[in-house]
Amino acid sequence: MMARWTSEQLGAGAKVEEYPDLRGALEGADFVINMVQIGMHEATLLDFEIPKKYGLKQTIGDSMGIGGIFRGLRTIPFVLDLAGEMREFCPEALLMNYTNPMSTLMEALYTARPEIDSVGLCHSVPLTAREIASYIGVDHEQLLYECAGINHIAWMTRLEVEGEDAYPMLFAALEDSEVYAKDKVRFELLRSFGYFVTESSEHNAEYTPYFLKRDDTIERYDLPVDEYVRRSEKNLVVYAETRQKLLDGEDFPLERSVEYGSLIIHSFVTGEARAVYGNVENTGLITNFPDGCCVEVPILVDGTGLHPCHVGDLPSQCAATCAPHTAVQNLTVRAALEGRRDHVHHAAMLDRHAPSVLSLDGIAAMVDELIEAHGDALPEGIRTVGVGRRRM
Amino acid sequence: MMARWTSEQLGAGAKVEEYPDLRGALEGADFVINMVQIGMHEATLLDFEIPKKYGLKQTIGDSMGIGGIFRGLRTIPFVLDLAGEMREFCPEALLMNYTNPMSTLMEALYTARPEIDSVGLCHSVPLTAREIASYIGVDHEQLLYECAGINHIAWMTRLEVEGEDAYPMLFAALEDSEVYAKDKVRFELLRSFGYFVTESSEHNAEYTPYFLKRDDTIERYDLPVDEYVRRSEKNLVVYAETRQKLLDGEDFPLERSVEYGSLIIHSFVTGEARAVYGNVENTGLITNFPDGCCVEVPILVDGTGLHPCHVGDLPSQCAATCAPHTAVQNLTVRAALEGRRDHVHHAAMLDRHAPSVLSLDGIAAMVDELIEAHGDALPEGIRTVGVGRRRM
Amino acid sequence: MMARWTSEQLGAGAKVEEYPDLRGALEGADFVINMVQIGMHEATLLDFEIPKKYGLKQTIGDSMGIGGIFRGLRTIPFVLDLAGEMREFCPEALLMNYTNPMSTLMEALYTARPEIDSVGLCHSVPLTAREIASYIGVDHEQLLYECAGINHIAWMTRLEVEGEDAYPMLFAALEDSEVYAKDKVRFELLRSFGYFVTESSEHNAEYTPYFLKRDDTIERYDLPVDEYVRRSEKNLVVYAETRQKLLDGEDFPLERSVEYGSLIIHSFVTGEARAVYGNVENTGLITNFPDGCCVEVPILVDGTGLHPCHVGDLPSQCAATCAPHTAVQNLTVRAALEGRRDHVHHAAMLDRHAPSVLSLDGIAAMVDELIEAHGDALPEGIRTVGVGRRRM
Amino acid sequence: MMARWTSEQLGAGAKVEEYPDLRGALEGADFVINMVQIGMHEATLLDFEIPKKYGLKQTIGDSMGIGGIFRGLRTIPFVLDLAGEMREFCPEALLMNYTNPMSTLMEALYTARPEIDSVGLCHSVPLTAREIASYIGVDHEQLLYECAGINHIAWMTRLEVEGEDAYPMLFAALEDSEVYAKDKVRFELLRSFGYFVTESSEHNAEYTPYFLKRDDTIERYDLPVDEYVRRSEKNLVVYAETRQKLLDGEDFPLERSVEYGSLIIHSFVTGEARAVYGNVENTGLITNFPDGCCVEVPILVDGTGLHPCHVGDLPSQCAATCAPHTAVQNLTVRAALEGRRDHVHHAAMLDRHAPSVLSLDGIAAMVDELIEAHGDALPEGIRTVGVGRRRM
Repeated sequence: MMARWTSEQLGAGAKVEEYPDLRGALEGADFVINMVQIGMHEATLLDFEIPKKYGLKQTIGDSMGIGGIFRGLRTIPFVLDLAGEMREFCPEALLMNYTNPMSTLMEALYTARPEIDSVGLCHSVPLTAREIASYIGVDHEQLLYECAGINHIAWMTRLEVEGEDAYPMLFAALEDSEVYAKDKVRFELLRSFGYFVTESSEHNAEYTPYFLKRDDTIERYDLPVDEYVRRSEKNLVVYAETRQKLLDGEDFPLERSVEYGSLIIHSFVTGEARAVYGNVENTGLITNFPDGCCVEVPILVDGTGLHPCHVGDLPSQCAATCAPHTAVQNLTVRAALEGRRDHVHHAAMLDRHAPSVLSLDGIAAMVDELIEAHGDALPEGIRTVGVGRRRM
Repeated sequence: MMARWTSEQLGAGAKVEEYPDLRGALEGADFVINMVQIGMHEATLLDFEIPKKYGLKQTIGDSMGIGGIFRGLRTIPFVLDLAGEMREFCPEALLMNYTNPMSTLMEALYTARPEIDSVGLCHSVPLTAREIASYIGVDHEQLLYECAGINHIAWMTRLEVEGEDAYPMLFAALEDSEVYAKDKVRFELLRSFGYFVTESSEHNAEYTPYFLKRDDTIERYDLPVDEYVRRSEKNLVVYAETRQKLLDGEDFPLERSVEYGSLIIHSFVTGEARAVYGNVENTGLITNFPDGCCVEVPILVDGTGLHPCHVGDLPSQCAATCAPHTAVQNLTVRAALEGRRDHVHHAAMLDRHAPSVLSLDGIAAMVDELIEAHGDALPEGIRTVGVGRRRM
Repeated sequence: MMARWTSEQLGAGAKVEEYPDLRGALEGADFVINMVQIGMHEATLLDFEIPKKYGLKQTIGDSMGIGGIFRGLRTIPFVLDLAGEMREFCPEALLMNYTNPMSTLMEALYTARPEIDSVGLCHSVPLTAREIASYIGVDHEQLLYECAGINHIAWMTRLEVEGEDAYPMLFAALEDSEVYAKDKVRFELLRSFGYFVTESSEHNAEYTPYFLKRDDTIERYDLPVDEYVRRSEKNLVVYAETRQKLLDGEDFPLERSVEYGSLIIHSFVTGEARAVYGNVENTGLITNFPDGCCVEVPILVDGTGLHPCHVGDLPSQCAATCAPHTAVQNLTVRAALEGRRDHVHHAAMLDRHAPSVLSLDGIAAMVDELIEAHGDALPEGIRTVGVGRRRM
Repeated sequence: MMARWTSEQLGAGAKVEEYPDLRGALEGADFVINMVQIGMHEATLLDFEIPKKYGLKQTIGDSMGIGGIFRGLRTIPFVLDLAGEMREFCPEALLMNYTNPMSTLMEALYTARPEIDSVGLCHSVPLTAREIASYIGVDHEQLLYECAGINHIAWMTRLEVEGEDAYPMLFAALEDSEVYAKDKVRFELLRSFGYFVTESSEHNAEYTPYFLKRDDTIERYDLPVDEYVRRSEKNLVVYAETRQKLLDGEDFPLERSVEYGSLIIHSFVTGEARAVYGNVENTGLITNFPDGCCVEVPILVDGTGLHPCHVGDLPSQCAATCAPHTAVQNLTVRAALEGRRDHVHHAAMLDRHAPSVLSLDGIAAMVDELIEAHGDALPEGIRTVGVGRRRM
């Protein structure tokens, strides 16, 4: 409905259609965009409520940590089905994934469906650049940046304004209490690791063991525990309201977003070269990240397709903040593809946040309860006790 | 004194000499064995007492974690000096390092003194094999094993008795409360990760975030907090007693140890081929560990020297337990070689144990106090505030 | 003079200046373009006449084979000097190299002057695309292509016209005797290896052992032996004529070339993203080429600089045609950087063309005579008999 | 028969049995040794006679060059069948391959049957060491050596006698006309590349483009053209004679060979550590050889199995002599596994020797005739015109 309204407003003349099955939607497609939430609000609630019982607090829970692991496990079967259907109905199409957990889903895709071209897209890089611009008081078009890492933990390795390093300006902003208050976790990470990271303070709080394990730090850094549950509830309301407004013929503001999807389509069709940030398999692109993990890097797009760019080494300390997460993502993908319940346990035990709160048996009990609760939504094999190296 | 006594007992006729300077000891040497403790008992005390003030408990503190970082920082200058003198006085000699923190010192050596042949030696692999044999009730010569990882966190990837997988026997031993009680932490790691790890339960407790952060787990797993301080004190006493016994002409038991050093010398001289475990640069040996980190792998030794063997991938979950430590070791080495105080902070923040107890500012304050306390024992540059990317 | 005239014609208002020394030209530069011929026509003559005495015929001799080796040896010192001065006078500038032998000079640059940003630029990729378009009878803007390899031996891995594979059209063109006659060597390579290669038939003839070793094939494939000597002589004449025309105020046609240099400058300054082909260090970009060799690949250029793109594996047979040349280039660079005369011999012995005509002692004698003839133009060390592993 | 006689002589009590099918031989086996000649004398004759018609001379033709390619193509189906049966009847057994072309067969095995442990064994390394010892006049037990490369083109990277570099002694031997006369090709390769190579002068002559293309060099270096045809004929005679002698109860001399097979079995069974040279997949072992090619390197053997050792870089010029051959081997394996006739053509065109004599169309015609002549002995697909990228 919104797509139709937008097309009309812009006079784009786009044909908007709904299909009851994948086949109808995929047949003859050149581009496939994946934006889904498997399990809806109910599954999200489980991902928050069960860990909370064990003492493990989360803020967003959509990409990393225990919430990210289980959202990954129940979404992997869907994306593999989607890409499987694409092999039949549109084998040449490009799959653009916007769904979280980004890195886990992308690793599952290029591992198990390598014959389908795919790329993971997220606005966190360009939005972070705009936030930095606002913190240092320049127009975002003045800010030159380079960025690399994994989705949501990509590091701004270069910031320049008019040919000058902009990091001193950002360290100065850190000391301005008003600016600092807007993004406490990321400014603390800047102070500690020397570089600014993508996404937001509420996301990054749960990607590290430093902030959420104690009440005093939760308070000091204004951490919105259970934030995503509230957002998820609000989303349901906004969805209903928007629908009603559309039915009522009301107007919406129309402005170009920072999302890369439509730009990529434009480049494919017109041949115009562009640089975007996207999430792809690490084929030696970031040299101190493991080969095969999913990385967020600059990508050249033109009429011949997507060409990820070589990045080289990230600063060692930045690489080290990502390494545990790429391991967890790999174990989550293996758990789903090989049906190994033990790898779900391994993933949770190797998360950076969970072990800062729980002991090994606490993590094990929490994982078992989550597996039980999500039931059939999880891939075959994971629900069976005793699969993998040992009974778990 | 002990060396002379031993040589006499065995009728080995070895010439034992002491030298006031390195030159005398090194000139014309074929083999150099490094066993030192830089800073002695006093420095060890600081490594334990200062973190404890901040709430961070340690058991051994000699290899990883905050104690390992600072022991590394004050020992790197010595080993680089030693290898530097070797370039002049015995450039062809093999340097066998027994000093901890093993991986950090070895990485410093092969990074900054690549022209000197070196290998890190430790008894943790063969001793662990003997312990496993005793837990499953077989003679240690019956146990066939393969092992790989980093020093003190190497994983037994294969255990066989008479052609049969011995892991079921070891999981059975885990369920025997008497056996379990001897090695609780390592049995819990076996239960969680599916493989048995080298060194001991008291060491491994501080290599992970699962055990030492809470009083209940400290008690449940019998963790000997401050153990190394007590050992270090006892060492001083034993040293004095042994010295007196030697002066008094008393006897000592003489039996062959599991240490590899003398076997390597034997193979070099006679050409007899042997397999030993040693710590060397990862040149693609363990394929899911970072290139350049220090790994513990099987090594062929014969008359032509040391030839590290290709291992391939470790199980993902095992590799993931080592990855944060190889990052910390790399940052510690960089801190020392580049004089970067900020990298000392990064190393401490990326340790697995410290952030399970402390917040970012807690870690930062503790590191600053330790730098202040160790003073001139640390490499140039680290004592200067403001070196590196930002003031710390 | 030509630059000034062009600037005037276009009303560009460019300031064109000549400097007696590098310092004046480099100070404050943002871009440095290197187009030189070290040794001029006289050195080229030696590169052709001496091999011919031994029976080795060449067509162009500027990039690979014995001519390429010696042109490389006498040009490496100049480009290293140039980049050395840049470190002092414009350390942030980009060095764009147009001088041959491209791969050898680039490998010398990024090996010995890694702190200077550099890229090697050549028109062979876009010109080959235009030639292909003309052979298959489409407008060059209709032809979509992907290309990778080493400079002058890059392979068109993808050719498309309106979404369809254009290779069948090119194989059909091969069968058209009129079209075939325009590019015999490259059509034969297409027939044999399945892909079309960059540069021209006269260049590629001497890059392989198939064409130049026998009179019958020289005739059958219309190979212009000594072509570059004639071109070089003609260049001297054209240079003089052009100079005279400029002095006489005559007009020249003005049209945009396919060269990438000015486009790169435009992208750096405006931030507009572009795809160019350039020659850079292989950092895992082409996965079945050796790391460290110089490869020609797509590069993203924008306001943040040059970002080479990941290519992956080339078809095995295409990779295999490049491998001997990357080895020869590496040995030439080592010869120059380490002053190793024996590596000059190794380079010549491992060329694809020379051993199809000469025996080992023939190659050795020819190399010794060329070293003698070029004398002081060659890097220190190479002129000394007995340097390297053995006397040569 | 010979095995029974040997066992009796040594009182080994070995049970020697013959089986009409693979199943009987494989069931329950711990070790499988492969020594076969597919196509027998007749196929060998074709491999020599057809190339000779086109002007291409060979000496041995069993491992590289056009003879090696076709011997590989007709032997790959057999070794894959063998390893396929092993999966069923003895999945844990070690396959030791002695059959040529060694590298091609091994690459086919570990590529297409990765679940079977396999290693390629050859006496060329230890025999070459004995020959070197005799050339420099020392006992072979005095000679310390390190060697690496591909089978038959492995380079002695280190030669020592009593702690001193033995290469000066070998260069001196080169100047002794009597010694030189015994091994002319390998001494010329030593003179040219600085290192001594394995196998023999008659083999190495056809591995390079320097010797066999002209009559004068054939004579000067005493090259025994068609040598293997004569050996093959003689083998038939010796086989018959030996059989008769055994039937007549005659005696044979019994001495330990330098072959590694029985030593490997001994180490597996007793656990005694040994160093052997073997041919295995390059998993980063020789760093300047392509990953995945088959390399000959030192291997640690003990009770836990075979552990190939890391070698690092070979001297550039030595690596460059092997690179074309590893490409040809890869194309031959691909041709067989993918049924691609065009890759057989590519392999022949990329050989070092063939293009020093033939033009592209000459090679193509020769390959087509060989395919026709070998007929059903070749893998499916190769006999079909038009398979692969283009009709050939």
